Amino acid sequence: MEDPIDSFDREWHRIVAEKDRIGLGRVLADDVTVGVPPYWQKLHGRAIAVHLLDLIIHTIEEFTYHREWRNGRELALEFTGHVGDVQLQGIDLITLDERGAVANLDVLMRPVNAIIALRGIVAPRMAAFLEERAAQREDSD
Amino acid sequence: MEDPIDSFDREWHRIVAEKDRIGLGRVLADDVTVGVPPYWQKLHGRAIAVHLLDLIIHTIEEFTYHREWRNGRELALEFTGHVGDVQLQGIDLITLDERGAVANLDVLMRPVNAIIALRGIVAPRMAAFLEERAAQREDSD
Repeated sequence: MEDPIDSFDREWHRIVAEKDRIGLGRVLADDVTVGVPPYWQKLHGRAIAVHLLDLIIHTIEEFTYHREWRNGRELALEFTGHVGDVQLQGIDLITLDERGAVANLDVLMRPVNAIIALRGIVAPRMAAFLEERAAQREDSD
Repeated sequence: MEDPIDSFDREWHRIVAEKDRIGLGRVLADDVTVGVPPYWQKLHGRAIAVHLLDLIIHTIEEFTYHREWRNGRELALEFTGHVGDVQLQGIDLITLDERGAVANLDVLMRPVNAIIALRGIVAPRMAAFLEERAAQREDSD
């Protein structure tokens, strides 16, 4: 049988390459936490994480994975890409839970102007998504 | 005989814990390159790298290593710390050359305000160091 970490790893690369939003939802745990480049506090929950990661992989152009490390259920995946003419290097630090779903993902990047360029595109769209979600919840109360 | 990667790893942790500037010079290759959080372009050469890394480990408070990954001569070392009241998470991506010296080190961090706080302290000191170096070179011409 294939090592579940191998299957996760292959599936994660496929999801990112194909920008597969539904696939993303499948590999994240319900209560996944995400450490993002702009803020210290982590984002919580699958719906928010899917929306954010989907925005990120649609915003970073020529997103390409390079070096890769594994240590049990902890993975580190280096990537490069660019936002407009701003080049970037980043790493996904992924912790899988015992079922092989993503329990935590921290995204670290350099240089600082790339993080600011990415945030400039992603942050307003995340804010709109969160407002819409809050409004839907009020409607359903 | 001990694996040279094990010896490097132990020595690197000792150097950072003891803020050992001379030790730093010993484990970096002559032509080491460093990818820093604020800029895309890499810094080149041992003297500049030692000065920069020494400044960084003196500036980040409670610098502590956590998860660690290895893949042949490629290492990834996660750390946390803070600059004043700004918390940070970072990773050192280290490539060793065939002699076990650091050929390349990329430093990625989050969140963005921590990179800016670190840069605010380190950048003017690096600029002063580079000016002094340039002046010394002119004197010796």
